[in-house]
Amino acid sequence: YGKNTIKFLRLHREGKKHFVKEVEVCTHLRLTSAHEYLDGNNSFVIPTDTMKNTVLALAKTNGIPTLEQFAIDICKHFMTFCQVAYVKTYIQEVPWQRLHENGVPHVHSFICAPDGIRFCEAEQCRNGPLVVFAGIKDLKLMKTTQSGFEGFYKDKYTTLPERNDRILCGELFCKWSYGECRDFDFDYIWNKIRECILEAFSGPPDCGEYSPSYQKTVNSIQMLVLSKVSQVQVIEVVLNNTFYNVVDMKNLGLTNDKEVLVPVETPYGSCACTLGRK
Amino acid sequence: YGKNTIKFLRLHREGKKHFVKEVEVCTHLRLTSAHEYLDGNNSFVIPTDTMKNTVLALAKTNGIPTLEQFAIDICKHFMTFCQVAYVKTYIQEVPWQRLHENGVPHVHSFICAPDGIRFCEAEQCRNGPLVVFAGIKDLKLMKTTQSGFEGFYKDKYTTLPERNDRILCGELFCKWSYGECRDFDFDYIWNKIRECILEAFSGPPDCGEYSPSYQKTVNSIQMLVLSKVSQVQVIEVVLNNTFYNVVDMKNLGLTNDKEVLVPVETPYGSCACTLGRK
Amino acid sequence: YGKNTIKFLRLHREGKKHFVKEVEVCTHLRLTSAHEYLDGNNSFVIPTDTMKNTVLALAKTNGIPTLEQFAIDICKHFMTFCQVAYVKTYIQEVPWQRLHENGVPHVHSFICAPDGIRFCEAEQCRNGPLVVFAGIKDLKLMKTTQSGFEGFYKDKYTTLPERNDRILCGELFCKWSYGECRDFDFDYIWNKIRECILEAFSGPPDCGEYSPSYQKTVNSIQMLVLSKVSQVQVIEVVLNNTFYNVVDMKNLGLTNDKEVLVPVETPYGSCACTLGRK
Amino acid sequence: YGKNTIKFLRLHREGKKHFVKEVEVCTHLRLTSAHEYLDGNNSFVIPTDTMKNTVLALAKTNGIPTLEQFAIDICKHFMTFCQVAYVKTYIQEVPWQRLHENGVPHVHSFICAPDGIRFCEAEQCRNGPLVVFAGIKDLKLMKTTQSGFEGFYKDKYTTLPERNDRILCGELFCKWSYGECRDFDFDYIWNKIRECILEAFSGPPDCGEYSPSYQKTVNSIQMLVLSKVSQVQVIEVVLNNTFYNVVDMKNLGLTNDKEVLVPVETPYGSCACTLGRK
Repeated sequence: YGKNTIKFLRLHREGKKHFVKEVEVCTHLRLTSAHEYLDGNNSFVIPTDTMKNTVLALAKTNGIPTLEQFAIDICKHFMTFCQVAYVKTYIQEVPWQRLHENGVPHVHSFICAPDGIRFCEAEQCRNGPLVVFAGIKDLKLMKTTQSGFEGFYKDKYTTLPERNDRILCGELFCKWSYGECRDFDFDYIWNKIRECILEAFSGPPDCGEYSPSYQKTVNSIQMLVLSKVSQVQVIEVVLNNTFYNVVDMKNLGLTNDKEVLVPVETPYGSCACTLGRK
Repeated sequence: YGKNTIKFLRLHREGKKHFVKEVEVCTHLRLTSAHEYLDGNNSFVIPTDTMKNTVLALAKTNGIPTLEQFAIDICKHFMTFCQVAYVKTYIQEVPWQRLHENGVPHVHSFICAPDGIRFCEAEQCRNGPLVVFAGIKDLKLMKTTQSGFEGFYKDKYTTLPERNDRILCGELFCKWSYGECRDFDFDYIWNKIRECILEAFSGPPDCGEYSPSYQKTVNSIQMLVLSKVSQVQVIEVVLNNTFYNVVDMKNLGLTNDKEVLVPVETPYGSCACTLGRK
Repeated sequence: YGKNTIKFLRLHREGKKHFVKEVEVCTHLRLTSAHEYLDGNNSFVIPTDTMKNTVLALAKTNGIPTLEQFAIDICKHFMTFCQVAYVKTYIQEVPWQRLHENGVPHVHSFICAPDGIRFCEAEQCRNGPLVVFAGIKDLKLMKTTQSGFEGFYKDKYTTLPERNDRILCGELFCKWSYGECRDFDFDYIWNKIRECILEAFSGPPDCGEYSPSYQKTVNSIQMLVLSKVSQVQVIEVVLNNTFYNVVDMKNLGLTNDKEVLVPVETPYGSCACTLGRK
Repeated sequence: YGKNTIKFLRLHREGKKHFVKEVEVCTHLRLTSAHEYLDGNNSFVIPTDTMKNTVLALAKTNGIPTLEQFAIDICKHFMTFCQVAYVKTYIQEVPWQRLHENGVPHVHSFICAPDGIRFCEAEQCRNGPLVVFAGIKDLKLMKTTQSGFEGFYKDKYTTLPERNDRILCGELFCKWSYGECRDFDFDYIWNKIRECILEAFSGPPDCGEYSPSYQKTVNSIQMLVLSKVSQVQVIEVVLNNTFYNVVDMKNLGLTNDKEVLVPVETPYGSCACTLGRK
């Protein structure tokens, strides 16, 4: 049980310069007892309202140096209660970015630009290690060529034609594990992984790289992250893809050389894979 | 990998009387090979487009006697492919209800009335049994009294007052397992379980039944279903609750005896429990 | 300017029996001055926070006999401020319905069943009459036959085939004007209009009535309401329709006699008409 | 009547470099006749399916030089049908941005970054001018200081304290009219207006500018746009603001100097103003 979507803004000031971190926190506990379920005895139950207060109080006292550190702080706090058997904290960030005017950063103005949402998770079982995950979600990417799908299995219900030049478009979800909690530079690593994802998805800027399937693109992302970022133990990638259908314009008296395409939003394909180190 | 939100309507006619079942199907496979991820070799990959065609073709040939039977049919179909290691199918129903005019059912007109969405799931590993789940989600219930929360654990961050008369309001998700697939009357059982949920939530119509916590209400639902419906092996209940805050009207020069309350939508509490038979 | 989505629950008790009305209120004002825009002089500005307090206070003191009466109360209140040039209040209801167990109504338990959302609007200009509107929205209806579309205009871009048997499915929005505020039985009238809408949409229960177009169905609804409900002055109907595409299964080796259809959610057609009395 | 959310991607290639414009088009017509409503006679009705085909065909033949030009093309096309009395076209853009790797633009890869959605509208009555509007919506901005609200009107329901240092956060909608259609550089003007909005909202980068109310900020945006962009005839601004509540931490034994704030998403204030030239 727990509290979901505890939303708040943590404002930090250095002179006239302001720094904001707006987050949404979900905190869940499992207790060692079951009396609250069986007998209606609430004596060990930490109210979800108290969880909310706790998250806000820790934000005040500790600040949010990184999302991950704040998730760790919350887990450690709840582990001090002996009736807690397990704690999990999920945090996602509202993507505020500092405004710039003619290249000059503004001291206290921000714009919301959601091009991939950063999140993290920390969890701990009593007597177990505190493990930390981080990730990016709602990252929508598209490449307009260098993608195909050929040589697939065919049966009586297969009508999909083979293609060696199609649009590849999808929403990416990536989540990786840092393993047992250590003193990492979480902000630096997160940005580096985001770069790896974009690079593996799109290939070199002058020519791209051919993707023979969503599966292979997912694997390329995972392989690049694991090779470039040693702190990542396991990486999960989910690619929900939107198919772009080339409109048949023969009936309209026109030829359409992949110039006008219609997105097919439902149904959509999904491809998920989790990859770890040996 | 798989195809999500395959939406379609299956229309069945008996003379002038029409019967509709509109569903949303998600079908996922895991293959025995990994060549598509590692080498871009797609020769074993059943395209998600073929999955969609298959679901539509099976709907045509088999009809949808019950959601569960249709999910079973889909799983069995994909298990005939030897490269498939695992198959899972999720189906949810659009809640069309037959229109009535002055109590007379209409032969072909329907209204959408989403007071709890029916869904089911079937899954199978190669060499394993086909197991079937069913459930209800997005079921929003409220009781305006006979609910409290007292005697809970307190620490320095606890500000929640004890209450013995509050509103209990939440969105219920229930999912149960039928265990290995057998020839059940899935429609009858689903309706019986829905009745159990409503009864356990609300208590007798003339007085209700006191709930000392969300946890106890969740447990009461599970206990009633397990005692009344022998086919259910395991039942999971998630209750996402909306707190109703009694507005303090002292500053407005008014007393408010729990007459005007404001829903607090974020953050919201969540309470989940899975219960099986011994 | 104003306050939107002021959500609250008004609980009314008669002995052990509870009655709930949960609503969402939007209240907007236009002031006679413009100093707040031009000079930043706020001396005439009624804060939106005060608007919220006012709505809650009026709910406490007056109750919500009907949505329409409550909207009227709010408008009248704000018209007592001489700086107010115009006031408009919109209210929509959360569709809580009393739970029944074996036909017996429960004293304090409710289920949310959104099969058409009731709303109303009241507005007044200084020195003008207080006019009241009411309506229903998000009403999703479907008929699986007795609908066609033929004889339409054709040009070089027309590919739609003529059909005399298709599914008609859509989301209805209806809003009508009562004209100048009078002492009507708003609940009774609203229910009667809802019945008219369902009847005009679906036709007689044993055979339905043929609809040659969305436009004609919209007009039929308007004509029936205007003929049956004398209090309605003007009625606006918007029908956003979802097209159901009969899946071509020739390539799958199957014939599909309008048994499997796929909803086309985007793009969707829309048809709107406003009709008054002579 | 018309067709809404006609979504498609227009791909333009110059050698290896690809340019994408993904849009959502809504096109509405009013006919000179009413036979389709009254008699079910569809002979003048241009099917919404034909509208969709037309939009796609025009995208193929004309391309989308700017959103505005494409909206103009659509309006002009439908005005060639003599049964059309009025046409309106709305277009909004999916915010794809070219990916960069180490500062190098990618030839065919894009990321979706929705920091303000561009849209436009064109409309024409028979015998009237073609008028063009453009705008930006879903633009979320925040300033963490230099905002207050004081000296407002007070009555018995006012509990809001006066503040001279609060967070100003909101979602902006701006729509302006270019008047009768002329040959403007719509892309250049749109970007210039976006800059004006950001500048007027936030003030100078080193110190900002004090906002005494949402109303004044709305007015400042309008005044700056009208003074800097001569092509704009009328400008409408709607600011839906999210209030950030400073959490009272006295009960938690902490002081909170505007460091931890909770967003209040409902109810929310709204402030709208339309301003033209003399």
